[in-house]
Amino acid sequence: MTDLQSTRQFVDDNADQMIEDLQRLVRQKSISSSGEGVRDCADLLASMMRDVGIDADVMATDGLPIVYGYITADRNNAPTLLIYTHYDVQPAEPEDEWDSPPWEARLVDDRLIGRGTTDAKGNLMAHIKAVQALKATGGMPINIKFIFDGEEESGSPSLPAFVDGHGDLLMADAALSFDGGFDAGNIPRINLGSSGLLFVQLRAEGGKNDLHSARARLVPNPAWKLVWALASMKDRDSNVLIDGFYDDIRPPNARERELLEQAGWDDDEQKASLGTEEFVGGVSGVDALEQLLFTPTCNIAGFASGYVGEGRKTLLPAKAAVNIDFRLVADQHPQDILRKLTEHLRRHGFDDIDVEGEHGIEPSRTDPDDPFVQVVVDAAKEVYQQNPTVRPTGDASGRQATWLAGKLGIPGAGTAIGPPDWRGHAANEFMTVRHYLDGIKYAATIWSNWADRWSDA
Amino acid sequence: MTDLQSTRQFVDDNADQMIEDLQRLVRQKSISSSGEGVRDCADLLASMMRDVGIDADVMATDGLPIVYGYITADRNNAPTLLIYTHYDVQPAEPEDEWDSPPWEARLVDDRLIGRGTTDAKGNLMAHIKAVQALKATGGMPINIKFIFDGEEESGSPSLPAFVDGHGDLLMADAALSFDGGFDAGNIPRINLGSSGLLFVQLRAEGGKNDLHSARARLVPNPAWKLVWALASMKDRDSNVLIDGFYDDIRPPNARERELLEQAGWDDDEQKASLGTEEFVGGVSGVDALEQLLFTPTCNIAGFASGYVGEGRKTLLPAKAAVNIDFRLVADQHPQDILRKLTEHLRRHGFDDIDVEGEHGIEPSRTDPDDPFVQVVVDAAKEVYQQNPTVRPTGDASGRQATWLAGKLGIPGAGTAIGPPDWRGHAANEFMTVRHYLDGIKYAATIWSNWADRWSDA
Repeated sequence: MTDLQSTRQFVDDNADQMIEDLQRLVRQKSISSSGEGVRDCADLLASMMRDVGIDADVMATDGLPIVYGYITADRNNAPTLLIYTHYDVQPAEPEDEWDSPPWEARLVDDRLIGRGTTDAKGNLMAHIKAVQALKATGGMPINIKFIFDGEEESGSPSLPAFVDGHGDLLMADAALSFDGGFDAGNIPRINLGSSGLLFVQLRAEGGKNDLHSARARLVPNPAWKLVWALASMKDRDSNVLIDGFYDDIRPPNARERELLEQAGWDDDEQKASLGTEEFVGGVSGVDALEQLLFTPTCNIAGFASGYVGEGRKTLLPAKAAVNIDFRLVADQHPQDILRKLTEHLRRHGFDDIDVEGEHGIEPSRTDPDDPFVQVVVDAAKEVYQQNPTVRPTGDASGRQATWLAGKLGIPGAGTAIGPPDWRGHAANEFMTVRHYLDGIKYAATIWSNWADRWSDA
Repeated sequence: MTDLQSTRQFVDDNADQMIEDLQRLVRQKSISSSGEGVRDCADLLASMMRDVGIDADVMATDGLPIVYGYITADRNNAPTLLIYTHYDVQPAEPEDEWDSPPWEARLVDDRLIGRGTTDAKGNLMAHIKAVQALKATGGMPINIKFIFDGEEESGSPSLPAFVDGHGDLLMADAALSFDGGFDAGNIPRINLGSSGLLFVQLRAEGGKNDLHSARARLVPNPAWKLVWALASMKDRDSNVLIDGFYDDIRPPNARERELLEQAGWDDDEQKASLGTEEFVGGVSGVDALEQLLFTPTCNIAGFASGYVGEGRKTLLPAKAAVNIDFRLVADQHPQDILRKLTEHLRRHGFDDIDVEGEHGIEPSRTDPDDPFVQVVVDAAKEVYQQNPTVRPTGDASGRQATWLAGKLGIPGAGTAIGPPDWRGHAANEFMTVRHYLDGIKYAATIWSNWADRWSDA
């Protein structure tokens, strides 16, 4: 067993240097939306990784680089963990809204204020410092592969191809990501899944130009075509009518349903926040939360045809387009849904509707009863002395650890070490010293506990 | 019987003065879109009407004035004709595209070039000159009420309230309008009807703001509400499903069908012109023309919700709006259709869709077998020595004589005296001396022949 007491002591004893290293990383800009500083930050990060004994490489992608790292366990029979987080950050404009300069990472009382202090450079550095602390005390308990993304704040456009091209390099026994901060009430949080996404545009055409609307008696209206196609795809009870759409859905198991019941969902609060008087399908309570997390959507994100503005125009539009996004749940697959949609339109006589679909994002969900999940939950309890919130999956779509885990067929979890209300993407983003140091210990504890259970199993 | 030979001779003998008077009227601008010169033109017109013995008044409306005139027959047992046309014109910009200045009404060879020479000051002046010629020769054969609109080029917004408020003043035995020019091939044309129009906006709301599209699992999507409402209103075979929508439609009679068959409809030419490969419902030939003229539409003129543009946004829209225009046919009534639509939405559970409908334009159609229509047709044959094209109704909507006739429950027809290809609304609009003088004779002939048949009946 790793001597975690001494590892934790090492973290406290070296707090100043650990904070300074985070400041160094924050001071190196890495704004993926503009590209500013990203490559320099990748080089700095790789050198900091090498300083603690991680074998690090700046790897090219179709976009900005991924920093890949590898470190082997100092014991036998150790599992391998794939760690995902990102070193790119949001822009800091308008900088005059900050109480201290966003790229200075100034320490004000217990707060380190700066862009990326939590999202995600603080979360990222916790791992490097945990490696340093473990190496200095009992040695690395597990093998770790790091993927530090340089495009997360831009939607990780290069990540899917990178993952598809490097399956062997990435293969591990579990995947974990650190990103963001605690829930309100200073409660640590563990996510076990994410929604998938398929974005599709349907387009129809009518006459060669917009025409006088009297001609609608003879010339087909492309907006009507899309209306009829859409009405064939989803009924008024929100049932998606595309054949096989629901086939691959894995319903929540007993443990997942239990997690929903513990989530403290409040209908009135949610309705007020969303601005709706009734939820779709009239659901309430835990059923509403289950619907939010475990059901897919077929959502009209945009519909444009003809003219709707000041004054009135009686025209027959030449074109119509509708954007649809499908939020998907495990184990639906975006390309399979795109194929089923295309087939549906063909079979219903909508051959003349043009379908343009993106690659999409796969949904993911790890079973809460998986032993790896217990390792993370128990580490949170041990370090933070309270029960973490465990979310069986998320309503949004992303490409972090649970997505990677889904791609690789391994368990995955996402957690976070930043403070609650950490002002992500806004002015005065901050990390606290306490959350940062605890985060380092949290990482080390997860790794050590997992190693112990792995060798016990 | 009126001595038409002498009346026609009078027209030819006084051609120069008749042309000069049209030039005077054209030179007085009367642009309803800006209002420029309209009131001065109304005063000039009223004085020119009084000069030939018409009792004329410039009457206030909610917008620009209507010039109303009245003249009584110089014989007993005479019918009363309501004549509609307009004294306002389109702007002339860009004026440098004109071969001669648009407000000069210069005579170049046989052409009088200027804004309004045909549309509609030439058409209008034909009546005043016909009165002058008849008064100078055999006397007025009928009673005439004139409405000269000052807002026709702006959609006649004040006309409906004026007509509703002056039913007694306007009541007549038939209505006639002169506007525009001959068909291609120099064929005179007689229209017996026009389409109605009802313009409606449907609006739906979802959450209080646009939301992350993952929330579509719980928050109703207003675009879907409109899609389902629209799909309940019209099926894929273009049948309008609103209860009672077709109830009041008067199908074409044998004579109207005969007129369609004489119209020389060419599917290929029409398809090429409209840019469609197939007509709605797969119709062809005379059936296509019948569909164009005798069936109503429920047309999506605009649909706007969420975002459809560069890049992609996965959002749940807070609002959606759709503009629908219904082209109506005799004897549908726009306000009745609006009531039926509202009732349809209520009965189908779309109570939360907001319906905003305009007053609309009533459709109109006069039976081609009506004796008044025969009078106009025979006058055209007599003056122009060829058979006019008789259109049983038009696909577009308007408020000219057939509309007035429909409101008053009397027969109505629309005809035109300008040359073919008269460049309406464009640079170098023109009237020819021949078409103008013939138009004066055409008006006088219609009146005289009608008076003769009226007293014979």
